[in-house]
Amino acid sequence: MKAVVLSADWQPKPDYLPSERELKTRKVMRGSQVWKNPRISLENVADPELKDDEVLLEVKAVGICGSDMHMYESSADGYMIYPSLVKTSNILGHEFSGRIIELGKEVTELAIGDSVAVEEVQWCGVCTSCRRGFLNHCENTEEIGFSINGAMASYIAVKAKYCWKLNDLIDKVGEQEAMLLGAMVEPTGVAYHGMFNRLTTWRPGNHTVIFGAGPIGLATIALAIAAGAAEVIVFDTSKSRRELAKAMGASHVLDPSQVDIDESILALTSGRGADWVVECAGVADKTIQQMNASLAVNASIIDIGMGSKSPVLPTVSYKVKGVQLAGSLGHVGCGTFQNVIRLMAAGRVDMRKMLSDTLPLEDAMKAFKRLERREDAKIILRP
Amino acid sequence: MKAVVLSADWQPKPDYLPSERELKTRKVMRGSQVWKNPRISLENVADPELKDDEVLLEVKAVGICGSDMHMYESSADGYMIYPSLVKTSNILGHEFSGRIIELGKEVTELAIGDSVAVEEVQWCGVCTSCRRGFLNHCENTEEIGFSINGAMASYIAVKAKYCWKLNDLIDKVGEQEAMLLGAMVEPTGVAYHGMFNRLTTWRPGNHTVIFGAGPIGLATIALAIAAGAAEVIVFDTSKSRRELAKAMGASHVLDPSQVDIDESILALTSGRGADWVVECAGVADKTIQQMNASLAVNASIIDIGMGSKSPVLPTVSYKVKGVQLAGSLGHVGCGTFQNVIRLMAAGRVDMRKMLSDTLPLEDAMKAFKRLERREDAKIILRP
Amino acid sequence: MKAVVLSADWQPKPDYLPSERELKTRKVMRGSQVWKNPRISLENVADPELKDDEVLLEVKAVGICGSDMHMYESSADGYMIYPSLVKTSNILGHEFSGRIIELGKEVTELAIGDSVAVEEVQWCGVCTSCRRGFLNHCENTEEIGFSINGAMASYIAVKAKYCWKLNDLIDKVGEQEAMLLGAMVEPTGVAYHGMFNRLTTWRPGNHTVIFGAGPIGLATIALAIAAGAAEVIVFDTSKSRRELAKAMGASHVLDPSQVDIDESILALTSGRGADWVVECAGVADKTIQQMNASLAVNASIIDIGMGSKSPVLPTVSYKVKGVQLAGSLGHVGCGTFQNVIRLMAAGRVDMRKMLSDTLPLEDAMKAFKRLERREDAKIILRP
Amino acid sequence: MKAVVLSADWQPKPDYLPSERELKTRKVMRGSQVWKNPRISLENVADPELKDDEVLLEVKAVGICGSDMHMYESSADGYMIYPSLVKTSNILGHEFSGRIIELGKEVTELAIGDSVAVEEVQWCGVCTSCRRGFLNHCENTEEIGFSINGAMASYIAVKAKYCWKLNDLIDKVGEQEAMLLGAMVEPTGVAYHGMFNRLTTWRPGNHTVIFGAGPIGLATIALAIAAGAAEVIVFDTSKSRRELAKAMGASHVLDPSQVDIDESILALTSGRGADWVVECAGVADKTIQQMNASLAVNASIIDIGMGSKSPVLPTVSYKVKGVQLAGSLGHVGCGTFQNVIRLMAAGRVDMRKMLSDTLPLEDAMKAFKRLERREDAKIILRP
Repeated sequence: MKAVVLSADWQPKPDYLPSERELKTRKVMRGSQVWKNPRISLENVADPELKDDEVLLEVKAVGICGSDMHMYESSADGYMIYPSLVKTSNILGHEFSGRIIELGKEVTELAIGDSVAVEEVQWCGVCTSCRRGFLNHCENTEEIGFSINGAMASYIAVKAKYCWKLNDLIDKVGEQEAMLLGAMVEPTGVAYHGMFNRLTTWRPGNHTVIFGAGPIGLATIALAIAAGAAEVIVFDTSKSRRELAKAMGASHVLDPSQVDIDESILALTSGRGADWVVECAGVADKTIQQMNASLAVNASIIDIGMGSKSPVLPTVSYKVKGVQLAGSLGHVGCGTFQNVIRLMAAGRVDMRKMLSDTLPLEDAMKAFKRLERREDAKIILRP
Repeated sequence: MKAVVLSADWQPKPDYLPSERELKTRKVMRGSQVWKNPRISLENVADPELKDDEVLLEVKAVGICGSDMHMYESSADGYMIYPSLVKTSNILGHEFSGRIIELGKEVTELAIGDSVAVEEVQWCGVCTSCRRGFLNHCENTEEIGFSINGAMASYIAVKAKYCWKLNDLIDKVGEQEAMLLGAMVEPTGVAYHGMFNRLTTWRPGNHTVIFGAGPIGLATIALAIAAGAAEVIVFDTSKSRRELAKAMGASHVLDPSQVDIDESILALTSGRGADWVVECAGVADKTIQQMNASLAVNASIIDIGMGSKSPVLPTVSYKVKGVQLAGSLGHVGCGTFQNVIRLMAAGRVDMRKMLSDTLPLEDAMKAFKRLERREDAKIILRP
Repeated sequence: MKAVVLSADWQPKPDYLPSERELKTRKVMRGSQVWKNPRISLENVADPELKDDEVLLEVKAVGICGSDMHMYESSADGYMIYPSLVKTSNILGHEFSGRIIELGKEVTELAIGDSVAVEEVQWCGVCTSCRRGFLNHCENTEEIGFSINGAMASYIAVKAKYCWKLNDLIDKVGEQEAMLLGAMVEPTGVAYHGMFNRLTTWRPGNHTVIFGAGPIGLATIALAIAAGAAEVIVFDTSKSRRELAKAMGASHVLDPSQVDIDESILALTSGRGADWVVECAGVADKTIQQMNASLAVNASIIDIGMGSKSPVLPTVSYKVKGVQLAGSLGHVGCGTFQNVIRLMAAGRVDMRKMLSDTLPLEDAMKAFKRLERREDAKIILRP
Repeated sequence: MKAVVLSADWQPKPDYLPSERELKTRKVMRGSQVWKNPRISLENVADPELKDDEVLLEVKAVGICGSDMHMYESSADGYMIYPSLVKTSNILGHEFSGRIIELGKEVTELAIGDSVAVEEVQWCGVCTSCRRGFLNHCENTEEIGFSINGAMASYIAVKAKYCWKLNDLIDKVGEQEAMLLGAMVEPTGVAYHGMFNRLTTWRPGNHTVIFGAGPIGLATIALAIAAGAAEVIVFDTSKSRRELAKAMGASHVLDPSQVDIDESILALTSGRGADWVVECAGVADKTIQQMNASLAVNASIIDIGMGSKSPVLPTVSYKVKGVQLAGSLGHVGCGTFQNVIRLMAAGRVDMRKMLSDTLPLEDAMKAFKRLERREDAKIILRP
């Protein structure tokens, strides 16, 4: 079958000592420390083999994510930009939908012909974190398209337990559209988990501030509106992303390099401040660190954007205002995929607003190239 | 000034022994046991006097509520239908908005010219329930339009602490519309409190069942949709109310006298059942009592509708499915009015969909007469 | 190896039509409808075989539960009393601890020599309920000692994912005591799940009412005290159980056949009522149905005791007081075993207070006979 | 009557511009910027006058708090150390109990002879924060013993709504002990609010880390144990405070200047890390900033200690582990005083363990002097 394969050279930086496990599996915990000269190619590879607890999917749609770009791109020193778990060579692709064409022997909950979206976080279900209900923090996690083969390919074999049926969505919007939307369940799920599973303080009528209007930020805007946000104030330094944010329904879009964050939020909330803040930009030191007077009493801050720099946080205000902050990661363990699919089926969110283009898998190389310019939002490949 | 005054004759039923306090204040805990021949009239009464912690409002809009009808109407035996706290004679009207024309000496948080919606539950702020944060369960509660003078009048004096500014709403929809919407904050607030303040289990994507499509039910529909409900399934025996429910955005409207509740919910939720159930009909024995197989795992039941009959509840299913149920009453103590006003200002709910007519206060008698036919939803009077 | 085996005759009652699955597996959903002449015997059976994801345990301690008694005992008509899932013939025993003597090939989280307590609810981890985080409501659940072989035997093979290490407990109380306590983690976990995982309203200082002082009720008393209950008021009709409740630390023990439940709770709480109510007696119509005036504002009711009769609940009071009620079942999915083991290790609860006796496995028949008299609390067998 | 009066000289620092309100009321928002040469004296002052909504208390016990010391002590430059709201001259004392000897005309919930503990945070009940239920964040707050006269005096007049009856406590421990304990409800309430009202993640069995073993830290230890903490690990640089922490029941006490915080927590929790962390030391940059590997999955951090330095927080770990952090302030609005009094009455906490001495009010000067040495925990004065 055809597949988009990521390759790179094993050249650990001098101060990075690979572990036994990394040496053995080539699954590196900090990709940017080891992988040099990353590159992708469209290759002919062997079809996947099916295990007893797996289903074989014909991939129908697969999105290109910011992380895909960071695995594909290198820094000035030639090392991969992506800083976390990554193996090479590996097939890319972790935001996808597909149709089941074969069932493993033990699979009982799914049938041939079912269409599904698939969780990227491959939780084990056996470790203590999983058994406590914290699947996003699985101690043995694998990640489709990062540490194991992904879905930028004709076929993929995945465990049945990671699949969520798109049937209701197909009934509402038809199979073709459902498959496109299905490929956006994963990023929308990351936003959903932060918005609704981490704290119990969300209330319709909340004035909401969102930092960053990349795919996760855009999904957060859509979900905030779908869940009854009052003013939705979005900050992003990119003009095209601010325009997307506006199209997604944001009440106000601002360039944080041009305004004072604290003052502008106060001005846009009649002086009451933000009740709900979501960090999707990955630069907490430039975003939530700047919020002080503009935090409402009982404000909640959800921190999703993964950035390396630790922020200096105004914890005196957190006490004086009774503020809470929660880090958020992942999208599994709380029925998030089910809820996102239902929101799509009921028409409460329409993630197609962030879709820049759909292209055949054969154009993958062109698509990655085009995304280097950072002018598009989401591009989806159709194998 | 002009006012709609409720009168009735003091004739306690033989088995009802009025308390000292009832005898002294004529504030009767169970109106239907004491008040005979209830009647309303448009009268000239003295203007209200202003206390130091009060504001004087020029009433701009005041809704006629089901409770108003139940105080005005009598049963076959001539006794008032309304079964709870009611004093006569008393000015009716507890769903209203107005403009401040005078300030008591101690008032600092409001200004002349501010437009406001007003809480009906007059919580004391001193009893143990209030100090624990449970203002809806105040041990000394008074109710505007029930136990003290209401707003079907040119003016009303109310404590500043019960007023919530409509300024943001006026900015968005103009003063006239804001005043109409302002008169619907109270019933919408009752639905909001049940939906979002009582349990922490609401999640966007929930399949939602609502029993009863009167004003509280309609507000619940609007809020459920605004907060990201998936399927919204509404049951009401009245055809006109089912039509209103549909207009408000319900996915499915059903006549519970014509279908099996349990089966129809299962059919409309792909067999998964309801995640969220709201009782707004006041007949729990005919509604939530009937739900068993159609309760999803982790289903939540919110019971708002006040009816006298205790239901037989299938608690085995509540255990097997992990179900929770919460009674809900009132609309104060959690910033509900602020949140409802913001939802209206942001356009997330539009309660005008349930507005049948607006009439001048002078037509109050006609309006009550017309509502006897139960063909309208909400009628608002403009003093 | 030796094992306590439950047998019975397959004689479905005339109106009970066994399903295909029941016919095929002999796992009957309603045991009391099918199994006649239940009996137990100490037999020599084949040692268990070990699967790749299992560990082989040498059983160290196994409790006799009320459910064990109900499988063993018959009604006047000769049918088994136990009304739920049960297979025969089957080895009994689901409250147990053991030491690992062999590992399946895929097991990585455990080692030979580890001592463990084991979850009774055998959740699949694949169905929708499991993936949403509701493991107690697994759609494919099996139950050790009910539908698959239990631990009243020399050895048992169990999946590694159901095992929780007792190492910290052994460090604190020594191996022998840790094994005894380990056999009581399961029933304590059932109480823990109801007390702390179902609602978020528990607060130290809560006046607490517990109905039923059997093992689950006693564990609830211990946990309520460990979690900061104020007054702990326990109702049970059995004198010996009331004495056990007192020994466990209850503030007040009452015979509900001799007092008015509502009045006595009010009297013991200075008129404020109960904040927290737990039904562990399985007769909701005689317990929580009776509570009305004695419910505090914001009272929470947890319903654990499984009984067949649906209660008539005073939902008017639930609204007037802002009460919530939650059904509770099981003990898995939220790290409950970890938390219970830690509470035991830290000495915050001492479940040995409910231990009547420990006997060798060989005396199992005598132990069951003795428990028919209902004079003991917990008896633990040591294989 | 006799009273301990705080005086100081009005000398705003050059860069501090007092507001109109500060100039008018001498209630300064940042005491350390304005007040020079602070000093206390035992004086004869006029008896308090009683308003209609107040009660007159005979003060029975009043604690000396760290804040009292910081108002009394000055820095090298002669300015008051205390950095927040403080007026002079003013009577000190905000942790106290007393007996009601006179009632204002409007008071209905209390009677002459009642003994009470009194909230220090004087919330208005009228501002938006109060009406939303966030009384600790009242926009018009006054503080007894800081901005208005306190209780280091023979008598004090306080609003009835701030009083919580000690009757149940007196029934259990007698009047004299109840009055002593009553004076410790306020600091215990500050710890309680952080522990139980801010997040919904506390679970019995949590491994708990507490930074700082001053009065708030000691109360936190007591409450954590009363609520079912597993290991309770306490850090404080002071040997005498570590000894107090141990006496209060801490499992482990450590000097953070001598050990690595992260490593020692991991070692003491079998490598699982801390589930619950409370900052009571006021030096977040030296405490919670140091926690990274030792945070358990789903760890919660409660930040109570008020310090001026903003910490650099490892938010990558907060995401990777799913951590939440909440600032906490105050003790009002959630029935905290009721719950603390009940915990004391039920014997679940015994705050007398932190009592170093009780002295007559006449010895106040000596007591303040003695506390300068920081060798005592709590000293209570008896007027």
